[in-house]
Amino acid sequence: MPELIEVEDAADPRLADYVRLRDVELRKSLEAERGLFIAEGEKVIRRAVTTGYPVRSVLTTRRWLPGLADVLGGARVYLVPEDVMAGIAGFAVHRGALASMARRELPDLKTLLTEPPGTARGTAGFDAAGAGPRRVLVLEDLVDHGNVGAIFRCAAALGVEAVVLSPRCADPLYRRSVKVSMGAVFAVPYARMYDWHHGLAELRDLGFRTLALTPAPAATPIDEVALGPRVALLLGSEGDGLSSRWLREADEAVRIPMSPQAMSLGVDSLNVVAAAAIACHGLMRGAPAGR
Amino acid sequence: MPELIEVEDAADPRLADYVRLRDVELRKSLEAERGLFIAEGEKVIRRAVTTGYPVRSVLTTRRWLPGLADVLGGARVYLVPEDVMAGIAGFAVHRGALASMARRELPDLKTLLTEPPGTARGTAGFDAAGAGPRRVLVLEDLVDHGNVGAIFRCAAALGVEAVVLSPRCADPLYRRSVKVSMGAVFAVPYARMYDWHHGLAELRDLGFRTLALTPAPAATPIDEVALGPRVALLLGSEGDGLSSRWLREADEAVRIPMSPQAMSLGVDSLNVVAAAAIACHGLMRGAPAGR
Ligand SMILES: C[S@@+](CC[C@H](N)C(=O)[O-])C[C@H]1O[C@@H](n2cnc3c(N)ncnc32)[C@H](O)[C@@H]1O
Ligand SMILES: C[S@@+](CC[C@H](N)C(=O)[O-])C[C@H]1O[C@@H](n2cnc3c(N)ncnc32)[C@H](O)[C@@H]1O
Repeated sequence: MPELIEVEDAADPRLADYVRLRDVELRKSLEAERGLFIAEGEKVIRRAVTTGYPVRSVLTTRRWLPGLADVLGGARVYLVPEDVMAGIAGFAVHRGALASMARRELPDLKTLLTEPPGTARGTAGFDAAGAGPRRVLVLEDLVDHGNVGAIFRCAAALGVEAVVLSPRCADPLYRRSVKVSMGAVFAVPYARMYDWHHGLAELRDLGFRTLALTPAPAATPIDEVALGPRVALLLGSEGDGLSSRWLREADEAVRIPMSPQAMSLGVDSLNVVAAAAIACHGLMRGAPAGR
Repeated sequence: MPELIEVEDAADPRLADYVRLRDVELRKSLEAERGLFIAEGEKVIRRAVTTGYPVRSVLTTRRWLPGLADVLGGARVYLVPEDVMAGIAGFAVHRGALASMARRELPDLKTLLTEPPGTARGTAGFDAAGAGPRRVLVLEDLVDHGNVGAIFRCAAALGVEAVVLSPRCADPLYRRSVKVSMGAVFAVPYARMYDWHHGLAELRDLGFRTLALTPAPAATPIDEVALGPRVALLLGSEGDGLSSRWLREADEAVRIPMSPQAMSLGVDSLNVVAAAAIACHGLMRGAPAGR
């Protein structure tokens, strides 16, 4: 049974996990320091719980409690009046509930990339035939939480088995990433690279062929590129794209051909989510049978 | 020479085009009634002007004027203090300027789809060899302005020649669509279908093979589908997908194969932008040579 606690005042210290939800900078440090993240709405909360994240507390109103009760176990539930809920959230809460969830320690790169897919973070779903994932994405310094979430959704939909984040890449557990990913951030195992300089060397040592996605005309068209048993696709930031270091160190630069007219229409690249989608779809053609 | 007018007060009636920019509902009706849209930032304003949209007025501060002056012709420019600018915008204005631009009449469906690409809205960039576009996207009731903008960017990058909007599809000239599209909404010709019921029949009469994009398992995998000289790809809304009417009436249902594990990871479809990107990339393989 959840522990129900009525709270009337938005400033009540017990609601501190939910403070200033729209203040990105404040939330980043607050969530890191307390080791929490926010899940929004019944569906996402349910997915976070079933993939094994512990609930710190839930914030909701009487109206939304019934839809959630079965998934909450003995969690602490703060029940607030509708107007307090709206005030705290500062936005329309999707399906009327927020949960503060405890983060878990991320695997290190080597664990993520050598253990059978699905074991690294206790998620199930991939068959564990091979030793470690064979198709991974590496995100270098993406800053937009929505883009990170959307790429996780693509990864889950298209059979990418793991995601590696560069040290400065945006957090997949930030509220907007979680929401846009439809919960895929809980399901696709990921790790953060702590050493950007030697990151690609480490991937190569683990047996990955590294493909740098770039619109540069000199790169190999994606439908002609040789894949191989283990492939890591590198995607660059929204503004500048991949760093020159990673472009230089990657095994091959790969481009998604664009229309010859694109430049004259003022478009010099695809959005990184669109590029990821096309590249993940392309990766599947080379995936081992049965995937 | 632009006409420079200093304004001190955010409530000045001359600034009425810029009122309450974050209020989506209010802006929708205001912009429709006055026949305007807002372009944000020097780069986007420049693209809107060069693709032929008339400037109603520009709102900026002294600091940003020099970067814009050359593109403004004789336009009326309201110069406001920095704090007034921040207050009116209510968000960080990208590169310090907003412009109120006059909309132009959209072509009707038949004009859009039968005139050589590039002539329908006076935009250049496509070679006008064929009679009318051969690769088009049709968006049914997308509600998210960001998704509409991102799809226009894909269309421009990947050689789609025109976009058709269902009657209830979100506006490509809404500020967020424009911004996310990187200005591609000015460059890719589009029209709005006024009759949803007979929309697909009209497309067929104009010689288009209509392909309904859907994750449904019974649909043909996209890499196996027969294209043809003129293809219209139908994309459905973020929540429910394509209407059953359009699914039934389309020439063929087409799916982007997803990983067998996607469902167990909680993901039952791709985001519509990701689906559009993969589908546009796939369309190009069938495009006539020289594209
Ligand atoms: C918005 S783009 C960055 C554009 C940047 N000006 C560049 O030249 O890379 C963001 C990322 O999407 C991917 N991307 C975009 N368009 C691409 C294309 N046509 N081919 C391959 N990758 C692309 C790349 O990984 C890129 O780093
Ligand atoms: C988020 S999806 C809608 C999901 C909806 N439940 C359905 O079954 O269509 C939005 C649109 O993206 C496109 N889409 C998403 N995943 C797709 C896939 N795997 N194959 C083809 N189209 C897809 C379709 O046009 C769909 O209408």
